[in-house]
Amino acid sequence: MVTMFDVAQKAGVSKATVSRVLNGKNIVRPEVTAKVFKAIEETGYRPNLLAQQLATKKTNFIGFVITNALYDGPYFSSLVYHAASFSEQHGRQLVMADGKHSAEDEKNAINFLLDMKCAGIIVYPKYLTEKDLKAIIDSTLTPIVVLNRNLSSDPQHCITTDHYSNASLMVEYILKQGHENIAFIRGLSDSSTGIQRLCAYKDTLKKHGIEVNQERIVAAKWTPESGYLAAKKLVKSGVDFTAVLAGNDDMALGAMKAFMELGYHLPKDISIAGFDNSKMGAFLTPSLTSVSVPLEKMIQKGILILLEEYQSAQKVSTEGCLIIRDSISRQANNKV
Amino acid sequence: MVTMFDVAQKAGVSKATVSRVLNGKNIVRPEVTAKVFKAIEETGYRPNLLAQQLATKKTNFIGFVITNALYDGPYFSSLVYHAASFSEQHGRQLVMADGKHSAEDEKNAINFLLDMKCAGIIVYPKYLTEKDLKAIIDSTLTPIVVLNRNLSSDPQHCITTDHYSNASLMVEYILKQGHENIAFIRGLSDSSTGIQRLCAYKDTLKKHGIEVNQERIVAAKWTPESGYLAAKKLVKSGVDFTAVLAGNDDMALGAMKAFMELGYHLPKDISIAGFDNSKMGAFLTPSLTSVSVPLEKMIQKGILILLEEYQSAQKVSTEGCLIIRDSISRQANNKV
Repeated sequence: MVTMFDVAQKAGVSKATVSRVLNGKNIVRPEVTAKVFKAIEETGYRPNLLAQQLATKKTNFIGFVITNALYDGPYFSSLVYHAASFSEQHGRQLVMADGKHSAEDEKNAINFLLDMKCAGIIVYPKYLTEKDLKAIIDSTLTPIVVLNRNLSSDPQHCITTDHYSNASLMVEYILKQGHENIAFIRGLSDSSTGIQRLCAYKDTLKKHGIEVNQERIVAAKWTPESGYLAAKKLVKSGVDFTAVLAGNDDMALGAMKAFMELGYHLPKDISIAGFDNSKMGAFLTPSLTSVSVPLEKMIQKGILILLEEYQSAQKVSTEGCLIIRDSISRQANNKV
Repeated sequence: MVTMFDVAQKAGVSKATVSRVLNGKNIVRPEVTAKVFKAIEETGYRPNLLAQQLATKKTNFIGFVITNALYDGPYFSSLVYHAASFSEQHGRQLVMADGKHSAEDEKNAINFLLDMKCAGIIVYPKYLTEKDLKAIIDSTLTPIVVLNRNLSSDPQHCITTDHYSNASLMVEYILKQGHENIAFIRGLSDSSTGIQRLCAYKDTLKKHGIEVNQERIVAAKWTPESGYLAAKKLVKSGVDFTAVLAGNDDMALGAMKAFMELGYHLPKDISIAGFDNSKMGAFLTPSLTSVSVPLEKMIQKGILILLEEYQSAQKVSTEGCLIIRDSISRQANNKV
C-alpha cells in the first residue's frame, strides 16, 4: 500500500508538508503544492476516501444520539435495534454517539455527527431543553428529529407518543376492574415520560372522585431492584391497596418478586401492571399487563422524515395501546 | 458562519474548485490554489475539523462492530452499555458500526471504522472466520481486539471466556443435585458460544456414564418464545426429565412459562437453569440459576488492550461463574 511517506519521499518534502497540502488547513507555497500533487499522481496514493467525503458532501450516515446511561435495558436495546434495521433498509448506516451525562455532552455528540456530515440525525434527548433543541435545529441545514419530546416550536421535528393518554387508559382500565386503591411506583423524577405517567395516574383518580393518597406513591429508579424495594416499602407502610401500577415493566418485575416473597398470590391478592411492554412480560407468571410504547413506529417515522419521505411518514401512527394480560384481577366490589 | 461559497466568491473561483483544493484529491493549478488559500485566510473559513483529523491522524474514537441482529436483547444492551462507559472513562468516544448479515458486511463495518482513524476497534464477530479475522488484523496498524472468539494465530488479540468450562460447571452442579435426566434447549446452531455449551452438556453427561439421549435435546432460537415452544415440545414428546438446561436465560424464561402453564411446580416438578445471568433472573419465581458471562470484564480488558495498557489488562480476569439461585431442586435419589 502506498503511504503518505512514499508521497513525501517522491516529492522531496516532509510528511507533514504532504499532510498540510492534503488537509488544506495551512498555506503551502504553490510550487510545493504542485510537487506534492505530482508525487500523488505518480505514486497512486489514495488518501482516505471517507475524509474527503466528509470534507465535501453529505454521507449516507444516520446519526443517533442517546445517553449511555439508558443503553442498559430492554427499552433501549429495542430502540437501537430498530434504528439500525430501518437505517439499513433505507441503505443508510447508523452511527451512534453517546449523549453521556449532560446537555453539554448531548450537544457535543450532535456536533460530532454534524461534523461527520450525517444525512440526518435522530436525538433521544435526556438533558437538552426544548430551547436548546430549537437552537440546534435552527443552526443547521441537516435534518434533525427529536424522539420522545414535545417541541412546541418545531412540531414537525419531533416524534412522540402520548404517554399521558396511554397512562390514563391504563388507570381507567384498572379502575374498571374494580380497583380503587391503586398504588403507583414511579421512576426517577428527571424523566419527562415518568412525569407524564404519574400525572395521568393522579388526574384519572381525581376524575373519578378518588382522593390521591401520597402514601400510595413510592419512588424507585426504573430497575427491577428498585421496584422490589419500593414494593416492600409499600407493604411495610401499611397503606391499603389492591393494585399497583409501576412506571415501567422492569420495576413491575421487581415488585412482583417482592409480593410473592411476602406470600401474596398474584393477581388474586395484588394486581400489577407496568409500562413499555417489554418482551419478558408475556412470559412472567402472571403474564404482565402493560402499555405498548410504539418504539419501532417512532424510529421508522423519524427515519422517513430524515429522508424527506413525508407521505410515508404520515401514514405511520405512533399511538400506544394497552396490552391486557393476566396480572390485573377483576374485583368483586366493582364500583366504577 | 463563513461557508465554502464565501471563500469561492472571494477567490473568484467556483465552489467546486475550493472543494478540490481543500480535499486535495484532484490537481489544481498552483496559482488557483494560492488564491483559494488567500481567500480562506481573509474570510476566516473553518473547514470541517473532523475531516482534517481523519485525513491526517488518529482520532480518539473506539470503534465497535457488532451485528444489529444481536442488538435486541439484554445480553447485547449490556455489552454496548459497558463499551460506552469504559470508552468514556478513558476519554474515548465509542462509535458503533453495524455488522449486518454477512462476513462481507462485517468487513465493511471494520473498514469504515479504519477509515475513521479509530484509535482501536473492538469486533464481536458473528460471520467472519478466524482466517478472515487474522487477515484483517495483519492488514492494519490499528489495534483490533476480537471479543468472544478464539484466534489460535493471534491469542493476544482475543478476549474470551471459557464457555465450555462454564457450561461444564453448570452440568456438574445439576448432576450433583441428583438430576440424571437433564434436557437441553439449545439456541441457533450458528453460534460458537451455543455449540460450546451443547458440547459441554454432552461431554459432562458422558463423563458421568450417562447416555446422551437426543430426544432430550430440543432446538430453539435464543428468544423466550422459542424457549416456550421448545419446552412444550419436550413435554409432548414424552421423554422423561427432571431438569432442563437452556442455552440462555431468555429461553429459560419461556420454558418456565410453558411448564407453569402445563401445571408443573418449579422447581419441585421440573428444575431449570440458563446462561448469561441476565438482570431479570434474580426477580423470576423461582429465581433463575444461571452462568455469569463476564461481559463487563471482557469489554474492560479489550479497551485496556486497545489503549496498550497491558499491565492493567492482565489483571482483569474473564472467568465466568455459577450464579446459584432457587430454580434447581435437590432430588432425593442423589446418585452422582
